[in-house]
Amino acid sequence: MRRSERMVRLVRQLLDHPGQPLSLTEMAEAYDAAKSSLSEDLAIIRSVLESEQAGTLHTQTGAMGGVIYQPGISMGKAEKFISSAVDRLSHGDRILPGGYLYMSDLLSEPAVLRKVGVLFAERFMAESPDVVLTVETKGIPIAVVTAQMLNCPFLIARRDHRVTEGSSVSMNYVSGSDRRIQTMSLSRRSLKEGTKVLIVDDFMKAGGTVKAMMGMMDEFNAKVVGVGIFMETAEPEDKLVSDYTSLMSLTKVDEATRRVVIEPGNYFS
Amino acid sequence: MRRSERMVRLVRQLLDHPGQPLSLTEMAEAYDAAKSSLSEDLAIIRSVLESEQAGTLHTQTGAMGGVIYQPGISMGKAEKFISSAVDRLSHGDRILPGGYLYMSDLLSEPAVLRKVGVLFAERFMAESPDVVLTVETKGIPIAVVTAQMLNCPFLIARRDHRVTEGSSVSMNYVSGSDRRIQTMSLSRRSLKEGTKVLIVDDFMKAGGTVKAMMGMMDEFNAKVVGVGIFMETAEPEDKLVSDYTSLMSLTKVDEATRRVVIEPGNYFS
Repeated sequence: MRRSERMVRLVRQLLDHPGQPLSLTEMAEAYDAAKSSLSEDLAIIRSVLESEQAGTLHTQTGAMGGVIYQPGISMGKAEKFISSAVDRLSHGDRILPGGYLYMSDLLSEPAVLRKVGVLFAERFMAESPDVVLTVETKGIPIAVVTAQMLNCPFLIARRDHRVTEGSSVSMNYVSGSDRRIQTMSLSRRSLKEGTKVLIVDDFMKAGGTVKAMMGMMDEFNAKVVGVGIFMETAEPEDKLVSDYTSLMSLTKVDEATRRVVIEPGNYFS
Repeated sequence: MRRSERMVRLVRQLLDHPGQPLSLTEMAEAYDAAKSSLSEDLAIIRSVLESEQAGTLHTQTGAMGGVIYQPGISMGKAEKFISSAVDRLSHGDRILPGGYLYMSDLLSEPAVLRKVGVLFAERFMAESPDVVLTVETKGIPIAVVTAQMLNCPFLIARRDHRVTEGSSVSMNYVSGSDRRIQTMSLSRRSLKEGTKVLIVDDFMKAGGTVKAMMGMMDEFNAKVVGVGIFMETAEPEDKLVSDYTSLMSLTKVDEATRRVVIEPGNYFS
């Protein structure tokens, strides 16, 4: 196999398996190449990824030596992405009754979602989460792409108890935003004790829903290693959750003047 | 830039943008390369993809010439994937009360989901859907990955009317499986007339839910160009929907003997 062909196969294999250790020995066999040639290929790939600030390759040495592709994004590209999202979302015709903001269209675009996943993966990769947790409904796509980038499964807490999930743990909580009592349930078989959990959601006001997810994780003896929020609201300033990372912060939604003000979130500070 | 470096960047750019036309002219500028060299690179990439039956590159000729990466999977690999999914799902301890099957763990794994997305994209790419539609909750991850592979947005019909979606079109329907009257609603601003829609869902018994989604699309004057189902049930044989593609078919769930029988779906016939 020529080097250029091998490079194509290598890059494809790496990009299709973010966060997953790939064995050098197995790759050398599959590509019928010396490990030393493969190492040279990987060095080129790493240097391109790093020069584009698009992630890196981690190499594990030794007999079981392998390589892990970790997707990344430069702070400059991240800021540009968020600034374009802010522009798109800062329109009066997105204001919904109750001071909500229509964001579903943005979070339905693969290119946008992918970047959200890369941002959260880059921020939380070091905590090595075993699973990404969200609550239905609009957090789900964010959980899916973040889990893709971290190469781990995701979990969806349900708003009601569904027969298709088997026996569940349920808990009631007061949603900070509309002060209603809500229920959240999670299949009993979905989590082992000691699992490291990354919580993600699309929107956070007071943080009641995220706090409920954290309480649910206590019930399962799981450990929350991070909280990633696509859009928080600046008000109330005192959240029920102290430690979280937000990509954007909704500072003002004025229904009368149709004015929307959004700032970059604490991810950038 | 050396060819090997250029190949890395090219492959990365293509794989990150499935289904999306990339301009040869812009790439030539970005990589400071002659179009003829790029064409050679692309020929190598295409030949590797095709030899691995992992998709192909479509080239658009002319001044606006571009290249589109279309992910694919060989029938052999597709069969192997489904056969392994069948094995994992055919366990008595997955049987839930009411003859349901616990599948959430499988559909939470990025590697499994990705293949489901590739299978549906391969099957429906020729219909050029503008959007992938599902109804919450468990169809959502499937819609996300299918939309990724087709490079189009997805839409989520809600089970209730949510304030965060703005004004909505709602419809009632009778779910074929549990004979309850259910409601489905979709934000009015989410769809333009004439949009081509691919419907996906995780599970289909009689097809009441899918039929309701089709009815909803009539309300929007949108055109349903395909229906993709992860798991259908063999019974009832007469579905409310005639034209759909299933990856698997649940033939038998015996709560007493804890026996589960699953066959490959009509995707393979």
